[in-house]
Amino acid sequence: MLTHSRTLVVQWGDCDPAGIVYFPRYFEWFDDSTAALFEAAGLPKAALLARFQILGIPVVDVRSRFRKPSTFGDRVVIESGIPSWGTASFEVHHRLLRGGELAVEASERRVWAVRTPEGTIRSRPLPPEVLALFSGSPPKTV
Amino acid sequence: MLTHSRTLVVQWGDCDPAGIVYFPRYFEWFDDSTAALFEAAGLPKAALLARFQILGIPVVDVRSRFRKPSTFGDRVVIESGIPSWGTASFEVHHRLLRGGELAVEASERRVWAVRTPEGTIRSRPLPPEVLALFSGSPPKTV
Amino acid sequence: MLTHSRTLVVQWGDCDPAGIVYFPRYFEWFDDSTAALFEAAGLPKAALLARFQILGIPVVDVRSRFRKPSTFGDRVVIESGIPSWGTASFEVHHRLLRGGELAVEASERRVWAVRTPEGTIRSRPLPPEVLALFSGSPPKTV
Amino acid sequence: MLTHSRTLVVQWGDCDPAGIVYFPRYFEWFDDSTAALFEAAGLPKAALLARFQILGIPVVDVRSRFRKPSTFGDRVVIESGIPSWGTASFEVHHRLLRGGELAVEASERRVWAVRTPEGTIRSRPLPPEVLALFSGSPPKTV
Repeated sequence: MLTHSRTLVVQWGDCDPAGIVYFPRYFEWFDDSTAALFEAAGLPKAALLARFQILGIPVVDVRSRFRKPSTFGDRVVIESGIPSWGTASFEVHHRLLRGGELAVEASERRVWAVRTPEGTIRSRPLPPEVLALFSGSPPKTV
Repeated sequence: MLTHSRTLVVQWGDCDPAGIVYFPRYFEWFDDSTAALFEAAGLPKAALLARFQILGIPVVDVRSRFRKPSTFGDRVVIESGIPSWGTASFEVHHRLLRGGELAVEASERRVWAVRTPEGTIRSRPLPPEVLALFSGSPPKTV
Repeated sequence: MLTHSRTLVVQWGDCDPAGIVYFPRYFEWFDDSTAALFEAAGLPKAALLARFQILGIPVVDVRSRFRKPSTFGDRVVIESGIPSWGTASFEVHHRLLRGGELAVEASERRVWAVRTPEGTIRSRPLPPEVLALFSGSPPKTV
Repeated sequence: MLTHSRTLVVQWGDCDPAGIVYFPRYFEWFDDSTAALFEAAGLPKAALLARFQILGIPVVDVRSRFRKPSTFGDRVVIESGIPSWGTASFEVHHRLLRGGELAVEASERRVWAVRTPEGTIRSRPLPPEVLALFSGSPPKTV
């Protein structure tokens, strides 16, 4: 499984009056991490949308466990991968580590989505090219 | 079960380039809705923290399903309640409705948390007064 | 001058580790207040964009003074109005009051903007209908 | 003048339905950039608060011009410095560049603030050690 890892420093504005990361912020980081994973696979988000004419890859289901809090100044690592692919959706798994210990983990189910001419949002089958990029075959240039 | 309902209008800044609510924002709304639920029970968050000398009621586990997207200008209703209470934690359930239809639902597990003299965060047993406020017995003035 | 006033309650997630509103959040509220002002004039933002085929009314210049901090649970009032109109831009003034006292004030310069066929963003002259809505003449239905 | 420069990539969630950075987000980045500047001077924010027993360095006045929009995937550089120091306040200037061109600039006035025993927030004279860190004299270890 292709995985991507990135490091970030928790900022003052990420934290709440208890001095710990305000939990919705983690979902922003995980969303950014999913984008970074696709970029690592050769598909930056802007290229992804333009090339496949999709609306995006919106989250339809998410689950997260917050095991340990983090605070401003903390350096955290987020590891992301896609353990399973469906026909029109896929699961992204994120692990956030602080000091080498698992602090937060999350699973997002995302769909390959287009906007129909009628203006509604619908899922569509994942293109084989996308699956190939994550399968370990050599990435193509987009 | 005491439930609380509030209405809000989706704002431009709540939405992403796909024109739909950026999903981490829902968790901000649900966090605010949990606070509104406690206020409806007679415990505004500031009073809650001061009276019980706690750090807060941080989320340790959350699950959410996004069934239908919403866009700016949409009027949505969030209904919140606490279906189950543990010794030191409890489950908050939120339903977000748009046009009367269920659009998003979420469950948060939260803990009653204090900061210890050593600076760590620990859960503590829920005070009986708090349980009483949600049990249907007449709310006391805080 | 048409002015619009709205009340909001400061939330936990609006505040930083110092326990006061994280200042970028004020700009979100002011942006929402500008939208509410247009809605009060008869032009909800979605209708505004659809009817005039514009990209939006982006802020090009902003100035804000933070006189007094606010904290979670505080009830604040934001009063908004448009003191001056240019050809393709206008100034929105916001005053945020807490307990009747001025706590924050801000001025936004916004432009009436379209996306050109080449993909760039350009300002355009404000339509007379928009000016009329704010001039005290009876609002038309959009 | 000590200046600090950092690069960031605009994320999907930083952008609004017009596909451009939602302007309050710039203020979050500038706030983070101010923290990074202090860290570059030898004072990470957590150490700053602990060492000088202050509440923070809240913004009391901010002015920003948005010259060019940015969109997700854009790589931007933020250059930050402190052009002027007062007795209890200072001015931070930020320049955000995209493709080498100035896209946004901002000035923040910040105060050196403590929470008094009565619970109010007050400014205090800047310690000479802090001024020394920015004056070009060799930084001390904190």
